[in-house]
Amino acid sequence: MFLKNCWYVGANADELGRGLLARTLLDERVVFYRKEDGTAVALEDRCSHRFYPLSKGDLKGDVIVCGYHGLEFDCTGKCVRVPGQTDVPQGSTIRAYPTVQRWGLVWIWMGDPAKADASLIPDIWRQDHPEWKTLFNPPIPVQGDYRLLGDNLLDPSHVAFLHKTTLGSDVAEVPHEMEAFDNSVRVIRWTLDRPAAPMFARLGGFTSNVDRWQIITWTAPCMIEVDLGSCVAGSGAINGDRSQGVEMRSYNFATPCTEKTFHYFWTHCRNYKHDDDNISKITREQVLIALSEDIMAIEGVQAGTDRYPDKRTINTRADGAGLRARRHLKGLIDAEQSEKTSINEAARATA
Amino acid sequence: MFLKNCWYVGANADELGRGLLARTLLDERVVFYRKEDGTAVALEDRCSHRFYPLSKGDLKGDVIVCGYHGLEFDCTGKCVRVPGQTDVPQGSTIRAYPTVQRWGLVWIWMGDPAKADASLIPDIWRQDHPEWKTLFNPPIPVQGDYRLLGDNLLDPSHVAFLHKTTLGSDVAEVPHEMEAFDNSVRVIRWTLDRPAAPMFARLGGFTSNVDRWQIITWTAPCMIEVDLGSCVAGSGAINGDRSQGVEMRSYNFATPCTEKTFHYFWTHCRNYKHDDDNISKITREQVLIALSEDIMAIEGVQAGTDRYPDKRTINTRADGAGLRARRHLKGLIDAEQSEKTSINEAARATA
Amino acid sequence: MFLKNCWYVGANADELGRGLLARTLLDERVVFYRKEDGTAVALEDRCSHRFYPLSKGDLKGDVIVCGYHGLEFDCTGKCVRVPGQTDVPQGSTIRAYPTVQRWGLVWIWMGDPAKADASLIPDIWRQDHPEWKTLFNPPIPVQGDYRLLGDNLLDPSHVAFLHKTTLGSDVAEVPHEMEAFDNSVRVIRWTLDRPAAPMFARLGGFTSNVDRWQIITWTAPCMIEVDLGSCVAGSGAINGDRSQGVEMRSYNFATPCTEKTFHYFWTHCRNYKHDDDNISKITREQVLIALSEDIMAIEGVQAGTDRYPDKRTINTRADGAGLRARRHLKGLIDAEQSEKTSINEAARATA
Repeated sequence: MFLKNCWYVGANADELGRGLLARTLLDERVVFYRKEDGTAVALEDRCSHRFYPLSKGDLKGDVIVCGYHGLEFDCTGKCVRVPGQTDVPQGSTIRAYPTVQRWGLVWIWMGDPAKADASLIPDIWRQDHPEWKTLFNPPIPVQGDYRLLGDNLLDPSHVAFLHKTTLGSDVAEVPHEMEAFDNSVRVIRWTLDRPAAPMFARLGGFTSNVDRWQIITWTAPCMIEVDLGSCVAGSGAINGDRSQGVEMRSYNFATPCTEKTFHYFWTHCRNYKHDDDNISKITREQVLIALSEDIMAIEGVQAGTDRYPDKRTINTRADGAGLRARRHLKGLIDAEQSEKTSINEAARATA
Repeated sequence: MFLKNCWYVGANADELGRGLLARTLLDERVVFYRKEDGTAVALEDRCSHRFYPLSKGDLKGDVIVCGYHGLEFDCTGKCVRVPGQTDVPQGSTIRAYPTVQRWGLVWIWMGDPAKADASLIPDIWRQDHPEWKTLFNPPIPVQGDYRLLGDNLLDPSHVAFLHKTTLGSDVAEVPHEMEAFDNSVRVIRWTLDRPAAPMFARLGGFTSNVDRWQIITWTAPCMIEVDLGSCVAGSGAINGDRSQGVEMRSYNFATPCTEKTFHYFWTHCRNYKHDDDNISKITREQVLIALSEDIMAIEGVQAGTDRYPDKRTINTRADGAGLRARRHLKGLIDAEQSEKTSINEAARATA
Repeated sequence: MFLKNCWYVGANADELGRGLLARTLLDERVVFYRKEDGTAVALEDRCSHRFYPLSKGDLKGDVIVCGYHGLEFDCTGKCVRVPGQTDVPQGSTIRAYPTVQRWGLVWIWMGDPAKADASLIPDIWRQDHPEWKTLFNPPIPVQGDYRLLGDNLLDPSHVAFLHKTTLGSDVAEVPHEMEAFDNSVRVIRWTLDRPAAPMFARLGGFTSNVDRWQIITWTAPCMIEVDLGSCVAGSGAINGDRSQGVEMRSYNFATPCTEKTFHYFWTHCRNYKHDDDNISKITREQVLIALSEDIMAIEGVQAGTDRYPDKRTINTRADGAGLRARRHLKGLIDAEQSEKTSINEAARATA
């Protein structure tokens, strides 16, 4: 159901410290904490003794101590002490998940640890670059299949309806183009010489028409970059000159919690007015309004999907990019599953 | 499970306007609204695209616009516009349900629209007659099988126990008679020369004994008329002269929501003191107390039934009318099902 | 799943009166009340007519009257009246459960009434003895398998971790001994010449080290006696002289509610300062804090067990007594089941 051998955003860097953070990822219970040297640790949130959550325990140095009977586990998941005895029972090791902290996020590898390769983490350098100001946000729990976020963001036609009061107005009929890459699907839409959308009008202070772009790039398994902006109409943005306007990037991560729920992580980068806290405040407020509209739609679609298991959806032209992304992801998951099956079969043949 | 080819009360007329009302009926999600000319419309509450509820959208003239991607549906359920394209995909039509507004209620036909015949709507003329004053009430959600309302109202023996403080007192042993008609079952009970029940004493101002009647008529699938009143003892009510007392009719409609829940619609008609708002207020209060007692009992029986799936109920003499009504309804449902089966078989044979 | 032919604590004596108390025991709904002479009665909480809960009805003398249609049941579960008719339908009798009030508790026998033998009730005489003061407590609902309470109390190694702030501190490594009896398992642990635990320091006013004991006796199916105390170090407690300190007994009863929930009854006896209400108050507060910690652990283990149905727990040395108690209980249940099976088979062979 989920792609395992890949990096997911497990937490914002600023969520982790010397406390214990419990989070369900890909239907597995994980406990996060930081070692004394600051390194992020992710372990299975289950004492191997009686399955009491380790997240209800305490840290002792880099070791996590179960809150019920005091069993201790090191950062590799090895049980290193059972109070009242000198040995440790067989089978007491729990899972440890590789983690990497980068771009202000803690990435977690839920698959085969041997395959965890930090160079596969997407290059979202703006989140750690002096010319860009990044806002982070605590993950929002969403009651929906994580793939619905890609469907939502890859189809700009919904903006005119769902986001009437924030982003959209008269752009439903503006056509968009699609491009596909190795591991990505992109949608590009330019709206030329039109009034600015309410949020951009507020942020950019436009008094005349703008050229407006939406460039949305989905990357497997569940990251969506939104490159959004408006420049004074005719000032050359479509040819690459974005100097006469307002530009932002938002990164959206739909990390699966369970089959039908996900953690919605998002960040927002801008390359103007870094230190203007008021801009930050307004941006966060406006984004959160738009997000809550998306979440309402995603949860409504999930509820409708659950409600009518026997009915078939219909597709519109605007669904093209979303369907392509889903197909690509399904291909990756199928490949991973059949690889796992053939490894298991080989193992059995050897045995 | 439900009788389909019949009229159900879907809403009170005063519940519908230019907003969108979502309601689950017979396990189907329905959205109600009024056209610009006031006609009531009932559509499947499901955009055929991604199953987002249409009730979260907007009206544009007589057309309903999906709140997510803006697909538009007319009053027949036909998809008439998909933003961003000029054609409409195959399979995008949704269900429309025939509706009729009559007697202050909006009736809905959940079965084959070709069979919807407005002349089958029960004739409850008092709800639209100058000599009668009718109170309407928003439907009450009940956690129970809709047939339990018939069981309840057709058995007056419960009044002495469940409605001690409102309707009943010493009448448990008074026998009742049962009559059966084509599509109805009736229970008749006269209690002669006894003190008035608390509610009637308040409304009728009786200072001496009364003759009291309860004439309850169940009509398939789920309407129950209650003809209730008290007259001065010996003043001739039993022979048809109801002039020396207080008379009321209440109409009860248990429209199924799901298998184990229903919407309890009720109305209350009286032919005295039309303009006395205080009488209306007291009546509504008293009826709602009695109803809440019935609902408590219905929900308790439903819970008990769910709790003991393997135990068999026992029947008492007072259950006769209720059992007869259930048998009749089952016969109608079975007939409808076997008709559907034979139509399907004929269709398959032809194909 | 449950042992049936044995006594369970069904209620505290002070919970019962002339009202109706509904409680689920061993997955059966029971209604408790007292007869006019004060005798405790326990009946199936189900009117045999439509399964309306009898606990929503009323008492009429020693008879319980259903709140819906007025059927009456005597203390043996026999239906003695159906309003509106002179006879009583076949199959209208409901179950009555033997009860005995003893030691301030009402014991209930959920199995074959013919086998109910009051002499099998455990002898916890301190709860009814002038030299001991007993505190009773309303049962606490716990979301866990009732056997988890035995696991918890029979393993004193958890005290140092779960009860840091109340009972425990540095005693995790103190070894304990186990003894097994006919129907009981006992764990004994002495901690000599150590500072008093916070709760005992408060109650006993110790200024120097103490000798401390924990003697925990589980008795099938679900009673755990905790004999707990501290005396001035070296004053002879280990040889039986408990005069220089503080001694308490707590009795814990995990009466199953459903498969995964139980009612936690507990009492607390002390043989000092009977009339000091402040000691009673502090004791109750401290015990409730420790209990809430145990309950948190039990509910956490239950959740973990449900979460990982395919994973195997590991055992530690400290689990020995708990595992032994579970094995013994399983033996009793298996024996009861196979006896039932052979009786059924014999009955079938005869028929």
